[in-house]
Amino acid sequence: MIIYLAGPDVFLPDAVEIGRRKAEICAAHGMTGLYPLDNAVNPAAASASLVIFKSNEAMMESADAIIANLTPFRGPSADAGTIYELGYMAGCGKLCLAYSNDPASYANRVARFHRVDEAPDGRLIDAEGLTVEEFGLPDNLMMIHALDLHGSPLVTPREAPEDIWHDLASFEACVRLAAERTQRLPGFN
Amino acid sequence: MIIYLAGPDVFLPDAVEIGRRKAEICAAHGMTGLYPLDNAVNPAAASASLVIFKSNEAMMESADAIIANLTPFRGPSADAGTIYELGYMAGCGKLCLAYSNDPASYANRVARFHRVDEAPDGRLIDAEGLTVEEFGLPDNLMMIHALDLHGSPLVTPREAPEDIWHDLASFEACVRLAAERTQRLPGFN
Repeated sequence: MIIYLAGPDVFLPDAVEIGRRKAEICAAHGMTGLYPLDNAVNPAAASASLVIFKSNEAMMESADAIIANLTPFRGPSADAGTIYELGYMAGCGKLCLAYSNDPASYANRVARFHRVDEAPDGRLIDAEGLTVEEFGLPDNLMMIHALDLHGSPLVTPREAPEDIWHDLASFEACVRLAAERTQRLPGFN
Repeated sequence: MIIYLAGPDVFLPDAVEIGRRKAEICAAHGMTGLYPLDNAVNPAAASASLVIFKSNEAMMESADAIIANLTPFRGPSADAGTIYELGYMAGCGKLCLAYSNDPASYANRVARFHRVDEAPDGRLIDAEGLTVEEFGLPDNLMMIHALDLHGSPLVTPREAPEDIWHDLASFEACVRLAAERTQRLPGFN
């Protein structure tokens, strides 16, 4: 099974090394991991962003599944590019797996960045009066239930690991889920 | 053309009224707008979030296009649910249109919430050392170039309107783009 490895990992100072480790974990379970090429493109080159987009889209097209790192990024929710890619793969009918190294509920995550109050009607709202959806899920319901219905429920650790950007235990749990799925489909590898 | 109307508009105190106005603008241009039903579901009901997911996914399946409101939401990027839906519709091969009522570049948006520095190698980085991608685009490149290649470039006003959550001028520009697309495909309405 070929797996697209989505996540804000590409923004880490050691992005290339993390990609190598993720691909190695995939290989150890008989899977092929494809890691985005953001770092291989010179950001100063003309149309660098378009080159990255096209290469990432082509990787997704060639993959059977996605493992998305949905650890919160610069706010209460996951990285925008990763979310887009999860949606894209769901729309393509591919197997959708994901993990978050932060198990906190969405409302608790919002409260780290914004004031959250209870409105007279019982809804949670932010300072602008916009509803803070609280279903006890770790992030927006569209992503969480997409995983439930198009793959496997979001993998989270019981507690956030010390290094949320480098701990790959929940990532490896996703790779195991992909490997189990492959074994259940004998003609598929 | 049936258009799925995605956006954090569903979290506004007057979410239902905004949905009504958006559907009216679609109708005025000969289009049918489908607005998510988050607000019609009792949030206290068991499995409310799953009911919302399934109804939104069914709406997307029945639509020919999406108009996504990518105005920044609780951070530098767009709303997570909206981004997921944009990706889903792109993966389904549907027409992708979107607007943002905030024309600022991504790096400038990040700087509103986080410290941004220049690393010795010239990259912009946040306080955790993670790269702040700066291609002069308003949000993550995956969304912006998906629009360029699977629909029409992101619509933004020259300056952010006074009321970023209720100004529908850029939304209407997207509806016009959808209507023009329909006219270019005579058998399609």
